[in-house]
Amino acid sequence: MLRIAVLGCGRIGQMHAANVARHPRAELVAVFDVHRPSAERVAQAQGVKAAESAAEIFASDKVDAVLIATATPTHADYIERAVAAGKAVLCEKPIDLDLARVNACAAKVADANIPIQIGFNRRYDPGHSAARAAMLAGEIGDLHQVIITSRDPALPPRAYLEAAGGLFRDMTIHDFDLARFMLGEEPTEVFAIANALIDPDLGAELKEVDSAMFVLRTASGKQCHINNSRTAVYGYDQRVELMGSKGMVISDNRKQHELRRFTSKTVEASEPYQFFFLERYFDAFMAEIDGFVDCVEKGAVPLASFEDGRRALILAEAAYISLRERRLVQVSEVSI
Amino acid sequence: MLRIAVLGCGRIGQMHAANVARHPRAELVAVFDVHRPSAERVAQAQGVKAAESAAEIFASDKVDAVLIATATPTHADYIERAVAAGKAVLCEKPIDLDLARVNACAAKVADANIPIQIGFNRRYDPGHSAARAAMLAGEIGDLHQVIITSRDPALPPRAYLEAAGGLFRDMTIHDFDLARFMLGEEPTEVFAIANALIDPDLGAELKEVDSAMFVLRTASGKQCHINNSRTAVYGYDQRVELMGSKGMVISDNRKQHELRRFTSKTVEASEPYQFFFLERYFDAFMAEIDGFVDCVEKGAVPLASFEDGRRALILAEAAYISLRERRLVQVSEVSI
Amino acid sequence: MLRIAVLGCGRIGQMHAANVARHPRAELVAVFDVHRPSAERVAQAQGVKAAESAAEIFASDKVDAVLIATATPTHADYIERAVAAGKAVLCEKPIDLDLARVNACAAKVADANIPIQIGFNRRYDPGHSAARAAMLAGEIGDLHQVIITSRDPALPPRAYLEAAGGLFRDMTIHDFDLARFMLGEEPTEVFAIANALIDPDLGAELKEVDSAMFVLRTASGKQCHINNSRTAVYGYDQRVELMGSKGMVISDNRKQHELRRFTSKTVEASEPYQFFFLERYFDAFMAEIDGFVDCVEKGAVPLASFEDGRRALILAEAAYISLRERRLVQVSEVSI
Amino acid sequence: MLRIAVLGCGRIGQMHAANVARHPRAELVAVFDVHRPSAERVAQAQGVKAAESAAEIFASDKVDAVLIATATPTHADYIERAVAAGKAVLCEKPIDLDLARVNACAAKVADANIPIQIGFNRRYDPGHSAARAAMLAGEIGDLHQVIITSRDPALPPRAYLEAAGGLFRDMTIHDFDLARFMLGEEPTEVFAIANALIDPDLGAELKEVDSAMFVLRTASGKQCHINNSRTAVYGYDQRVELMGSKGMVISDNRKQHELRRFTSKTVEASEPYQFFFLERYFDAFMAEIDGFVDCVEKGAVPLASFEDGRRALILAEAAYISLRERRLVQVSEVSI
Repeated sequence: MLRIAVLGCGRIGQMHAANVARHPRAELVAVFDVHRPSAERVAQAQGVKAAESAAEIFASDKVDAVLIATATPTHADYIERAVAAGKAVLCEKPIDLDLARVNACAAKVADANIPIQIGFNRRYDPGHSAARAAMLAGEIGDLHQVIITSRDPALPPRAYLEAAGGLFRDMTIHDFDLARFMLGEEPTEVFAIANALIDPDLGAELKEVDSAMFVLRTASGKQCHINNSRTAVYGYDQRVELMGSKGMVISDNRKQHELRRFTSKTVEASEPYQFFFLERYFDAFMAEIDGFVDCVEKGAVPLASFEDGRRALILAEAAYISLRERRLVQVSEVSI
Repeated sequence: MLRIAVLGCGRIGQMHAANVARHPRAELVAVFDVHRPSAERVAQAQGVKAAESAAEIFASDKVDAVLIATATPTHADYIERAVAAGKAVLCEKPIDLDLARVNACAAKVADANIPIQIGFNRRYDPGHSAARAAMLAGEIGDLHQVIITSRDPALPPRAYLEAAGGLFRDMTIHDFDLARFMLGEEPTEVFAIANALIDPDLGAELKEVDSAMFVLRTASGKQCHINNSRTAVYGYDQRVELMGSKGMVISDNRKQHELRRFTSKTVEASEPYQFFFLERYFDAFMAEIDGFVDCVEKGAVPLASFEDGRRALILAEAAYISLRERRLVQVSEVSI
Repeated sequence: MLRIAVLGCGRIGQMHAANVARHPRAELVAVFDVHRPSAERVAQAQGVKAAESAAEIFASDKVDAVLIATATPTHADYIERAVAAGKAVLCEKPIDLDLARVNACAAKVADANIPIQIGFNRRYDPGHSAARAAMLAGEIGDLHQVIITSRDPALPPRAYLEAAGGLFRDMTIHDFDLARFMLGEEPTEVFAIANALIDPDLGAELKEVDSAMFVLRTASGKQCHINNSRTAVYGYDQRVELMGSKGMVISDNRKQHELRRFTSKTVEASEPYQFFFLERYFDAFMAEIDGFVDCVEKGAVPLASFEDGRRALILAEAAYISLRERRLVQVSEVSI
Repeated sequence: MLRIAVLGCGRIGQMHAANVARHPRAELVAVFDVHRPSAERVAQAQGVKAAESAAEIFASDKVDAVLIATATPTHADYIERAVAAGKAVLCEKPIDLDLARVNACAAKVADANIPIQIGFNRRYDPGHSAARAAMLAGEIGDLHQVIITSRDPALPPRAYLEAAGGLFRDMTIHDFDLARFMLGEEPTEVFAIANALIDPDLGAELKEVDSAMFVLRTASGKQCHINNSRTAVYGYDQRVELMGSKGMVISDNRKQHELRRFTSKTVEASEPYQFFFLERYFDAFMAEIDGFVDCVEKGAVPLASFEDGRRALILAEAAYISLRERRLVQVSEVSI
């Protein structure tokens, strides 16, 4: 049993705490949040201790690993402190909104030989995983095109958006990572368009966008399209298509159950897709913890590493250059 | 080009006339109906002649074959006259409502060596055919169970029902035939329940039923279920499932097109199934003519023969015994 | 937290123990099995105590409820002892293979006012539940026909079959219960055919069957078909179709994930259905525990009651009469 | 009956001749091809006359309209001659590979008031049409994103590719047209990447590409992605997705029939999609003729007009600029 403390008791931290608690190979030993009542609520629900400080957790010999689910600006700090304390790290994405900070963090933790895994949960999704496994098994021959559809069910609150660091770093970062994961080689070129279609005020006031399309290409010519929207009223829309010389695989949306309705108006109608990422990716989040336990206990290489977190951020930076300069950008233009 | 005359210009006769006219290997040369205005309307629409009498058609040396789509009580007569005149026959189901009449007809035409094909269009349906072909190719191993779902979109008019000879002879007869076609061996036992659920008055006034379930079994033990309803509000429901030792095939319902709708209420919703048998089985009706041309021109054995028509009626008779006597009936109990 | 002890540590007992342990509203407090090493293995895996005897569990004031997953012949005894000890009961199906014993048990526990829930897990399945909810909400109008497809992935071992009490009491009992659950009124007539198609030796040696078809009807005329097979090579096949005057709902098979493959041979191909009932009905088994906790803590009426267990067995008895006598049997013929 | 002569008896001309011949509202009166044996073969098959020259057709008072299916470089000439002769025109895409020639042709025919329809068959596809109709009916609210997947089943012969004018003008032109049709407003910006993945020699020898991705945007910000491949081994892949503020519609691939196979390896597997555009778009080609008859007989505005043909070519030109200059191109940069 890997003894894990969860830092951060917001929405995602709460979920992780509950998942760790129920995971057969992990044990939730403590939680912490700068907002103490949040920590206490989660601690009580899970029957564990709410730590007084992060320091208490890093100092404890009852903690093998930390799961960092705090606000983004604190991630890099906590990673560094955890590594210094010899605790394995599972950190939510993004590592930081600032690439320089990420690079500095990378330099600091480089030699420590402590497992660091980034919370790119989609890599652990059963459908997406099976798509990649089929490709790696040669079922679709040479990969030619990747199509990623990634649309959130609803626009987050304004306050969230103000702090999120922009669509590409907050939301598309998952898709940039998934693109890399599926392409099997580094994208070298990035193109992006984006604007505010759902909420035009968003554009006017926050200079933020809510709908975007991307094209990526690797050195060997593999092509990738990503589309994003902040609002898909029919539910969280998460699809991956891999098309190759010998076939195609599609990891399609997952429903809560397989009920289909037939009336005089429509046939074969199902209920909207699972609305919330906590539900849609529940299996993925559990598998993510499983993979993390393997990293710590068996020395496995993280499926989503610190470097993967850094590379996804570099793609986001390249996409922002493309958005500003309205051109295909070389990823190497981003000062790495 | 096979020169075909169509007898009967009601709904089904009109359709056949149009199909023959457009068929690349057939030529519509004349139509006839006892109700002369009906014949003239169809004749004009197709640019052919409305014959004065059936006799004129049987006597004409410009007619190679007749397609009989008249009222059921005339079928056997017309078959006998066509055969006597040396015309090949494609006759709508059922041959007759009275098994004795069918047997007499069979005796009369037995030695004539004239092709007679019965209008069991479903045998020619691309999906149903492909299901049978997969089974014959060994894809599902030994066949164990056949499930036939067969529901009309809407209750026919009272006048139609009064003349139709009862659900089992009018509607289920298609399914009895399909069961035999798929089972690949003769059903030896039949069980039926049936009652009026859609229109209780139907039961009270006509002693007719509108919903039914059947179980058939062959000598080797293969099992078959058929369910019928006179009203499926979501469209004409026509499915066949073949389950065997190595797998299963399902010939599912066919939609007009592949549009799916996704809203906040439902996802993956399509438009109701094709409502009318003329649309649903259009390809099948065309293939039926194709098969008929092959019978006449190449001496092919009809995929749906006179004997198939007779056998389906025997199953209907056995089912009526089961309904009355509330027991599993041996098909051999029907005096053949 | 409801403190539950699990009696029986075979395959199904192990699963229940693990489910209770991970359930947020239940606590696994002890396990017991007459085969002590089995109990100890499960106890160790779940970090609980292996009781020395069932008596120890019934006597303990640390146990609120028992989950009975022992061999069928012990069920009724354990139910009676649990009720006498004031422990709530969740008992696997069937209550007993002998209806007289079930009736005796019913008489004994009738006045105790202790919650007794039967393990008809399918009532708790999200898809099947949603089908029933849609029907109850009037979405399909008046219910006319129910079609239940229920096929196991593989024939159980000979030893299991010898003790199971026959296909109808062991396997179809779930479907008889589901039929009652969906029909919303008591079936009054039952018809069955069954034979050994998968393993003919089964018939010769055990007088057992492996493939079956049933027709049920209620007093108001609602019709129900059930088909069973002991071997569906494509996975555990569990479908429910409810057809009514205003529409239809189908609770279809559930896949492990939504990957579809497209090659030059086939398109839209998914991986075989979840093979094992533990996986297929995982959500249902968890919801079953949830429902049980509600019964005990909130006084809710069990969704699957003792009487439901008894009624399903009566339908199995009626089906066996039909099988022997080859006729439609009145359920009232079974001496209740 | 509209009397139509078909110019060009290659693969597509043959198909059109057969479709006109079987169309209930059209009559095939003559065919012509510079390669006389081709014309004679088609003429014989359809029972019509093979004209000696195009001039003979333009001069004939038995011809109401011409369907131009000749080699692309002859299209504009034939359009001009047909219009001069007062014959309505249905011309295959593209009008010409050279925009200047198209513009000149446009100028010449501008005042003639003769119906000219371009062969953008996909506008007439039942599924794609229904998608657009749903959008126009407000079902998906404001349109935000359009995703067009358009992949040919197999690479055409080298000779075809040498004459085709490049992927964007030959193949993507259909998708540019479909994008305009679905977006409901003019795209103002275009981005493209393309390279040779299927046959690298294609790139080296012909400077041709076989795989491409595009992003288009309209003035109001609507986004559109198109992906192309010359080889989809699983069949002709033709999908359109319209995503909006209130929902999404997808016009998915069409199968030959609805057979699904279930084995121990895969479930729900269908046969590959219809391989050839003649089959996939058969209904669309027939509806295209229907629309054309309406234009001539009822003065309807062509659903796909000359200007639509010109606009699609402009988008192809803009896409080629983007490909060369690796940037987002304003459509207005193309000298119109």
